[in-house]
Amino acid sequence: VHGSDKGVWILPVAGLPELSEGDDLAALIAGATELADLDVVVVAQKAVSKVEGRVIQGDKHELVAGESSRVVRRSGDLTIAETRHGFVCANAGVDASNVPPGQVSLLPLDPDLSARRLRARFEQLGGVDVAVIVSDTFGRAWRLGQTNVAIGVAGIEAFTDYRGSTDFYGNELTATRICTADELASAAELVMRKSDGICAAVIRGVAVVRGSGSAQQIVRPPNDDLFR
Amino acid sequence: VHGSDKGVWILPVAGLPELSEGDDLAALIAGATELADLDVVVVAQKAVSKVEGRVIQGDKHELVAGESSRVVRRSGDLTIAETRHGFVCANAGVDASNVPPGQVSLLPLDPDLSARRLRARFEQLGGVDVAVIVSDTFGRAWRLGQTNVAIGVAGIEAFTDYRGSTDFYGNELTATRICTADELASAAELVMRKSDGICAAVIRGVAVVRGSGSAQQIVRPPNDDLFR
Repeated sequence: VHGSDKGVWILPVAGLPELSEGDDLAALIAGATELADLDVVVVAQKAVSKVEGRVIQGDKHELVAGESSRVVRRSGDLTIAETRHGFVCANAGVDASNVPPGQVSLLPLDPDLSARRLRARFEQLGGVDVAVIVSDTFGRAWRLGQTNVAIGVAGIEAFTDYRGSTDFYGNELTATRICTADELASAAELVMRKSDGICAAVIRGVAVVRGSGSAQQIVRPPNDDLFR
Repeated sequence: VHGSDKGVWILPVAGLPELSEGDDLAALIAGATELADLDVVVVAQKAVSKVEGRVIQGDKHELVAGESSRVVRRSGDLTIAETRHGFVCANAGVDASNVPPGQVSLLPLDPDLSARRLRARFEQLGGVDVAVIVSDTFGRAWRLGQTNVAIGVAGIEAFTDYRGSTDFYGNELTATRICTADELASAAELVMRKSDGICAAVIRGVAVVRGSGSAQQIVRPPNDDLFR
């Protein structure tokens, strides 16, 4: 655990060029900012999808069907679908914003693997031991608007688990397991505003717990899902 | 809009005493940290409930029923309920953690009003024009774990609305409305770890949009709710 007495700092990674398939995204980020051990590097899904060749030409409606493993709800133009990864989101993550007109972006095939590869590449490039989160913008069932969440995680635990620990008063904390990975993704969004084209941010000073967490662990299993 | 080129800083407010009904929470926070114009002060629900006399003795199951306007789902010991404010959360916000044994905390009667009052008091005390968010820890329908969200907002817009604006490629952003208030609450949680008793944080440097937003605006209206 890394201390946070001096607070947490969220830095936008500015100055990245337009991204294309095959680009070395980790090298571009490492070249645009100074990374340090224990930093959390948050990278927008769109950037990862671009370098992984997941921005393609095609009919959006057909692609949504192809990316969905299950339609959760439909309402007018909106399809809330479960992706093959188990994420529940609008249009199974198929999105036509921040990509060239006529193209759409699909989620990475395995965003946890994308995060692990970026992390390994940062280590290789600069000898730094950072965590990586791939973030995307998801809606919520009962709250308007969207927030950024983690769809890929590497190098940290996805959760900070208080279950079994006690609070100041000696009460056992029975139900609290904070999804730190999602909070880190949301925090990074504060400097990754949509219209600025900032697709990465560095979070420094957060009390991250080193580990081999994944975004896959965040997916609520079907037998625990009351809103199928 | 306030710039964020130098990033965003999240500072824990440490050294607050145990809180009781009637305490001047804004004065305690202002005395423990240096506030500046455009700061966002995030205060945990538990702290607000304590000073507002909403931590009480009582039977948890009865209090959950009293705080609920509608039961959304029940599963074993868990009740997912809608509160009178319209928030959908576990046990209608009734919580026995971080309060003296035998007592439970209820949500503030009007958390938006709580936020507005804190904001006015900060201005009165130090002449500073800050925004205030009252945060609480909510679960999610399809993702495990909890994140902090805004249940009270004052001094800023709850959303950053990109609808109608265009991206780098000239695509119109049709669906994106980021719930900045929830992201600020999540970001603050990164320094408000449960077991440390930190109940407030200051967020500095974020591109907040001044306005009269509220957490009430975040509540998805029934006719737009596909998961009732």
